[in-house]
Amino acid sequence: MSTTDLRFTDRAAHRAWLATQQRLPEGFRVGTQRFEFIPVEVHKPAKMTVNLITLDQPTASFAAMFTKNAFPGAPIVVGRKRLSEPVLGAVVINNKISNVCAPGGVETAEQVCRETARLLNLPSTAVLPSSTGVIGWQLPAEAIIGALPQAVAALQSASILPVAEGICTTDLYPKIRRVDGLGAGGKGCVVGIAKGAGMIEPNLATMLVYLLTDLAISRDELREALHAAVDPTFNCMSIDSDTSTSDTVVALSSGKIACPDLAAFRAALRQVCADLTEDVVRNGEGVHHVIRVQVSGAPDVALARSIGKSIVNSPLFQCAVAGNDPNVGRLVAAIGKHVGAVRPDLDLARTRLTLGGVEIFRDGAFRLDPTTERHLVDHFKAAELYASVPPADGLTFRPPVSWPPHERCVDIGVELHAGPASATVLGADRSHEYISENADYRS
Amino acid sequence: MSTTDLRFTDRAAHRAWLATQQRLPEGFRVGTQRFEFIPVEVHKPAKMTVNLITLDQPTASFAAMFTKNAFPGAPIVVGRKRLSEPVLGAVVINNKISNVCAPGGVETAEQVCRETARLLNLPSTAVLPSSTGVIGWQLPAEAIIGALPQAVAALQSASILPVAEGICTTDLYPKIRRVDGLGAGGKGCVVGIAKGAGMIEPNLATMLVYLLTDLAISRDELREALHAAVDPTFNCMSIDSDTSTSDTVVALSSGKIACPDLAAFRAALRQVCADLTEDVVRNGEGVHHVIRVQVSGAPDVALARSIGKSIVNSPLFQCAVAGNDPNVGRLVAAIGKHVGAVRPDLDLARTRLTLGGVEIFRDGAFRLDPTTERHLVDHFKAAELYASVPPADGLTFRPPVSWPPHERCVDIGVELHAGPASATVLGADRSHEYISENADYRS
Repeated sequence: MSTTDLRFTDRAAHRAWLATQQRLPEGFRVGTQRFEFIPVEVHKPAKMTVNLITLDQPTASFAAMFTKNAFPGAPIVVGRKRLSEPVLGAVVINNKISNVCAPGGVETAEQVCRETARLLNLPSTAVLPSSTGVIGWQLPAEAIIGALPQAVAALQSASILPVAEGICTTDLYPKIRRVDGLGAGGKGCVVGIAKGAGMIEPNLATMLVYLLTDLAISRDELREALHAAVDPTFNCMSIDSDTSTSDTVVALSSGKIACPDLAAFRAALRQVCADLTEDVVRNGEGVHHVIRVQVSGAPDVALARSIGKSIVNSPLFQCAVAGNDPNVGRLVAAIGKHVGAVRPDLDLARTRLTLGGVEIFRDGAFRLDPTTERHLVDHFKAAELYASVPPADGLTFRPPVSWPPHERCVDIGVELHAGPASATVLGADRSHEYISENADYRS
Repeated sequence: MSTTDLRFTDRAAHRAWLATQQRLPEGFRVGTQRFEFIPVEVHKPAKMTVNLITLDQPTASFAAMFTKNAFPGAPIVVGRKRLSEPVLGAVVINNKISNVCAPGGVETAEQVCRETARLLNLPSTAVLPSSTGVIGWQLPAEAIIGALPQAVAALQSASILPVAEGICTTDLYPKIRRVDGLGAGGKGCVVGIAKGAGMIEPNLATMLVYLLTDLAISRDELREALHAAVDPTFNCMSIDSDTSTSDTVVALSSGKIACPDLAAFRAALRQVCADLTEDVVRNGEGVHHVIRVQVSGAPDVALARSIGKSIVNSPLFQCAVAGNDPNVGRLVAAIGKHVGAVRPDLDLARTRLTLGGVEIFRDGAFRLDPTTERHLVDHFKAAELYASVPPADGLTFRPPVSWPPHERCVDIGVELHAGPASATVLGADRSHEYISENADYRS
């Protein structure tokens, strides 16, 4: 999906590249404030960042897509109502606690919106709330409200980087992508930020994504463009199959610059979404390898996509990839378990599989020998982002890099010869770092 | 499901208990032989065990259920044909290579059956083949055929233990369960063995299970009883959601002892299946905690079961359990992602959740405080089978126990208040040992 082929040797090089992405579109300002508080559930100090994205003028041109999880967070409940409001002027976002299934969650979200609105001189219905982090804990409304004036004081129009960092939870690095030169005189841009890094198999949206543009797009055009962009990008990835309760993608237009070419805008929005999708997977919790599955010859797109997801979500295949072990039997097992469960009548006799560009399976049987095996191992090793480093305590693995070393993938091709449809799905392997990250996430 | 509450302090104690389970039903003999060979795919020596289960007289009363994976192994293809044969006289089982999607697999399976039949003086259609292990590799027919005479020479009628051990791959210990005293004079029994321990989310059967009885049951009665027993047992567990290409459950009756009570036989068969299900999950790859989810008040059994599976298959919830971290937000996320995807109209407003017998969620919100948190941590710790031991090389985790220390579970209750149906699902957590086991399984 991504058109880039970025490579970074260290964190400083990655930060320097982020600086080239950070410029805000015209008409926006962002500000953040970090603070400490005590969750009532565990009585241990924790840290949170509150983030503001504001428009110089409230806009009618805004769009949002939310999780399909049947236990949506309070910000999702409020956000869905906001979609029918005439204008939006600000987004207020916190990390650490997602405000999902917590007592009084909706009222707390509205309370934060009201206070944000008061400080920014907006109606409270013009503020969209977003939260990410621990599920079930109560949002510390007083502490957030106490930090809001500093976040307002920090508002600036130069860089989106503080918010790209401020929304992170277990992300190793902030994620910013942009497309420029869409308007007259080379002005006009689309800029997006995203946070992962676990509970990622979006169902109509991903964790938290904010897409800002200064191009003048109508509300209807923006909403249609967002749906079209999200479906083949964020909805085609999975890190751990766990659709979040807080998935949110928001798009905002300040309308400052005339948009001469709607198709170019739609393409740019999709490109930013595709690039952020790759970033989110590549920075997924414990990810050593990004896996890209291209399924073709399927009877329909839904099956193509779900076969791809069955592969990237197979724990056994994920572990094999993490170990640079091309245990390709698990690849056919993952396809077969899914097709056997949902479409047992589908004839798989003509299925052809490639890995790293090499044919490994045809006419119902593998084509394996020591030469192929070595090629596959080399392909896995080339796509590895990092290898595990034995932890100091013997148990708690931490990723040794806090930047993306390259954009290579483990490339898998599945040709079913059973129809016209195709899909590309992004996923990742499963490593000790994922286990360590998630065995004690809340501390 | 299990009616037992076994506790073992070491491997010797567990072996002593296995000895109380090992007696074969009348009319059966078993034999095994271990040998070395070179897989053509990797040119490194490997070891395999060939196992025989034979009947003194071929029987018409046999039943088998197989995987629904759409890429079934060659033994499954052959086994399905055997179901319509008049009699079965032997089962030949190998580990290490599963004979799935390998060139010429069906012919190789038939070749092994023919040679087994020749040695046992049976028609080759009276031999059922089973294989488990690496997918995609070719079965070493010559090496197996070379080892068969020793397996035949080893046939004995005293103990099923050699085969319970001989079918193991990554299992830490053999699994045998029995129910006795079903026939006249306290004679007559059902004895079952099973192997796990990864690629376990059976779809109509589990990896490899053999159920032997000396009770005289007709073929039709046996097949019906087997289906009834498998559905609520093996089909209600998942270790890693990866339905195997080789799942097989076989039931054989020697008919030596009159069966006075068909209902008691059916109950015994189901009990043996339920106990083996628990054993397979408890000895699943890297399992630190068995998780038992009881879903009630569902509109139908299928949804009750799939909600349970969504919980036990959630990577994030699995990691939290492994870390004794009651991150219960991931529990509602796992329910919500599934219901949101498959039954978005279902009203979850009255859902009630318990963990370790304590209510944690009601009326759309969690009820969490430091006291509840401590109770949940204690419940997780009590159910822990073992804690990870830092590995010598810093990376390769191995379980420190090779016996089941106890039969306690992490107990989760999900009351939907949305219908009459219920289901119990068994699953497990996700640990460093699972990652290590599966990062380089084939070596």
